Amino acid sequence: MSITLDRSHLKGFVEDRDIKEFSGAVTRAHEALASRKGAGAEFTGWLDLPQRTEDAFLGELDELGKEARENSDCVVSIGIGGSYLGIHASLEFLTAEQKIPVHFAGHNISVGYTHHLLRQLENKRVTVVCISKSGTTTEPALAFRIIRQFMQDRYGAADLKKRIICITDRKKGALRQIADKEGYRTYPIDDDIGGRFSVLSPVGLVPLAIAGIDIRGLVAGAREAQQEYARPDLAKNTAYQYAAARALLNKAGKDIEVLSAFYQRLRLVEEWWKQLAGESEGKNGQGLFPASLNFTADLHSMGQLIQEGKRNMFETFLMVDDPGFKIEIPKDDDNRDNFNCVAGKDLDWVNKQAYKATAMAHFEGGVPNMTITVPRFDAESLGRLYYFFEKAVAMTGYLQGVNPFDQPGVEAYKKKMFALLGRT
Amino acid sequence: MSITLDRSHLKGFVEDRDIKEFSGAVTRAHEALASRKGAGAEFTGWLDLPQRTEDAFLGELDELGKEARENSDCVVSIGIGGSYLGIHASLEFLTAEQKIPVHFAGHNISVGYTHHLLRQLENKRVTVVCISKSGTTTEPALAFRIIRQFMQDRYGAADLKKRIICITDRKKGALRQIADKEGYRTYPIDDDIGGRFSVLSPVGLVPLAIAGIDIRGLVAGAREAQQEYARPDLAKNTAYQYAAARALLNKAGKDIEVLSAFYQRLRLVEEWWKQLAGESEGKNGQGLFPASLNFTADLHSMGQLIQEGKRNMFETFLMVDDPGFKIEIPKDDDNRDNFNCVAGKDLDWVNKQAYKATAMAHFEGGVPNMTITVPRFDAESLGRLYYFFEKAVAMTGYLQGVNPFDQPGVEAYKKKMFALLGRT
Repeated sequence: MSITLDRSHLKGFVEDRDIKEFSGAVTRAHEALASRKGAGAEFTGWLDLPQRTEDAFLGELDELGKEARENSDCVVSIGIGGSYLGIHASLEFLTAEQKIPVHFAGHNISVGYTHHLLRQLENKRVTVVCISKSGTTTEPALAFRIIRQFMQDRYGAADLKKRIICITDRKKGALRQIADKEGYRTYPIDDDIGGRFSVLSPVGLVPLAIAGIDIRGLVAGAREAQQEYARPDLAKNTAYQYAAARALLNKAGKDIEVLSAFYQRLRLVEEWWKQLAGESEGKNGQGLFPASLNFTADLHSMGQLIQEGKRNMFETFLMVDDPGFKIEIPKDDDNRDNFNCVAGKDLDWVNKQAYKATAMAHFEGGVPNMTITVPRFDAESLGRLYYFFEKAVAMTGYLQGVNPFDQPGVEAYKKKMFALLGRT
Repeated sequence: MSITLDRSHLKGFVEDRDIKEFSGAVTRAHEALASRKGAGAEFTGWLDLPQRTEDAFLGELDELGKEARENSDCVVSIGIGGSYLGIHASLEFLTAEQKIPVHFAGHNISVGYTHHLLRQLENKRVTVVCISKSGTTTEPALAFRIIRQFMQDRYGAADLKKRIICITDRKKGALRQIADKEGYRTYPIDDDIGGRFSVLSPVGLVPLAIAGIDIRGLVAGAREAQQEYARPDLAKNTAYQYAAARALLNKAGKDIEVLSAFYQRLRLVEEWWKQLAGESEGKNGQGLFPASLNFTADLHSMGQLIQEGKRNMFETFLMVDDPGFKIEIPKDDDNRDNFNCVAGKDLDWVNKQAYKATAMAHFEGGVPNMTITVPRFDAESLGRLYYFFEKAVAMTGYLQGVNPFDQPGVEAYKKKMFALLGRT
């Protein structure tokens, strides 16, 4: 049930021997990571988080979810960046399991979006989850003001305590202060896990539990991945192989990694990946530019450029072995479109031929590519995938000589914005 | 009511004098384009399409829409690439005007997506629009087989004639043959307008008319844009200024153009732009890599990399002057989050301060940027914007010495795929 990595379309760009030669560097990076002595080691709490997550805690979240669903028609999840993307990605990937709608807020400052959200909440019983370590990030802070006002207009103080849940710092910060004063239930954001590595922490788990998602499966998959990708040996660690190939391709002048997923329901996992990769590696004037495409839709928009544009990119395909549904392609007696060749076949079989053809054509066109395949659209597969990418991106960062766990560049616009807002 | 272009953050990268020096090249490219003697001239029907579109035709589409909405609860729009992106983008941009839900099909081969779509159509009265010039593009052809079977199981032949509309070649092709045999209503796709330039043709207009969108406003905006951007003088033509800046930035080693929109409802206009730019310019081993971000959400994922990553990119911000809604930020007596500085202000004012701060910070971080601003989220603004980008991308292609109207690279994977599918 492991994730597989196909590297056959790296031939001529990154050979097996190149990766083997890299194994010393990978071992050194592994040791720095595992011993927590490398750059940014204070933010590596995600490394053993799956094993540290207790079943009793998951049971508690299941109970919280049941209770919230009994008194709510929908959830509003307030957060941005790592407090938004993974939650939305999980819900899209596991859409079949979702028992109650989840709306998002605080991930933009779009007034039209917020206006429509408030209209959607009219006449609905609402539970709110507000996620922010500091409570002072502009988007979620303003959204929380607006949504709290909406909730206060509708519910009394006792009811609000049941309906507002805060995920925040254990001790300090604005949201902690608000939650303590008002008596809102809270779950912790610990200091040793950065936002983009928090998808398997309470940040990612609490909203999913309320939505009715199988969080035990998610954590179970991540636990197995934690074990599998703890192997120091590059030959036995696909996450490290992916990381090594990325670092070598980047070294060879490939500046852009295009993540191309062949299923609609992977679109937001790709967006989550963009933050993970971009924010971890994009610093010191270096780092791959992560771009996401969703095929075959985007094959009909960006296919021409990938096939024949500037040869400054490589591609990572994201596939799912068993998508969980079957649709037989109908026969047409007239066969005007000449597709009776696939009549009676399952639609997903065609999708997989489209993938094979695309991977081959782009390779031949000068775009090396790899394929990551997960077993199914289930919680276990998703837990594995999240951990796989986390481990791989951390490794790539170390191989490139950057601290993959900080984000010094995000202060620049914030300072200017606070000045414009008159915020001291 | 024109679109504005702010180039102040190109200073130090592309100066006014660089653009001025480029005016000879722009004039020559303009003459090639306007006289229809340049590369790919046979596909420049979009140039005067807005003026050629007759009011009587728009009236006919309005009638079609009224009739369809009377007997339907929803629409299924089947198509991919240029027969999908613009329609979805328009509906998102003009979401407030939409009178009936539009579902999409044939823009992927995702079996789960198709399964859920069919479930959503149960117990609904459905009108189908199938858009394909040839009728043999894999995704829409297979979707049309599946959806036609669904429709045939529910409706008699006479009813189907009212419920299935085909947009296809005037004379030839599989979809034309099917439509003629079955008696489906048709609208034409002409030979002189390629898919990615078809958003203002029947391809883009028919589904919008059925959805109840103001297509007269869309065409009116495009007509004004056609006139404005026909000006040969670079100093008076903002579409050409944008094109010249893009070409000069690319020449100066900027390989990636990041389109960063500050409104959620611009997300799919950005995707439409990606096809327009990528497919027009990505050939002969050159062309900017178009990447789209939606702020401020993606500022919290890709902001670090833009601020401090490899300096191989420039940014184009997409703004809307008046978003059409107002939400006042509430005052909080406790002010724990310290945002009472903006209490009483409109949410969009904060969004615009975030934009200003971001544009400044990225510029200072070594990412030159421009800002395109449209007046409102109305049909006229959208018509202007579509034509602005079409004209600018055509100009950039000519300045870069490529034919912006072909897409030779898309055959490579198709050949391989047809072989795998056993299709002769």
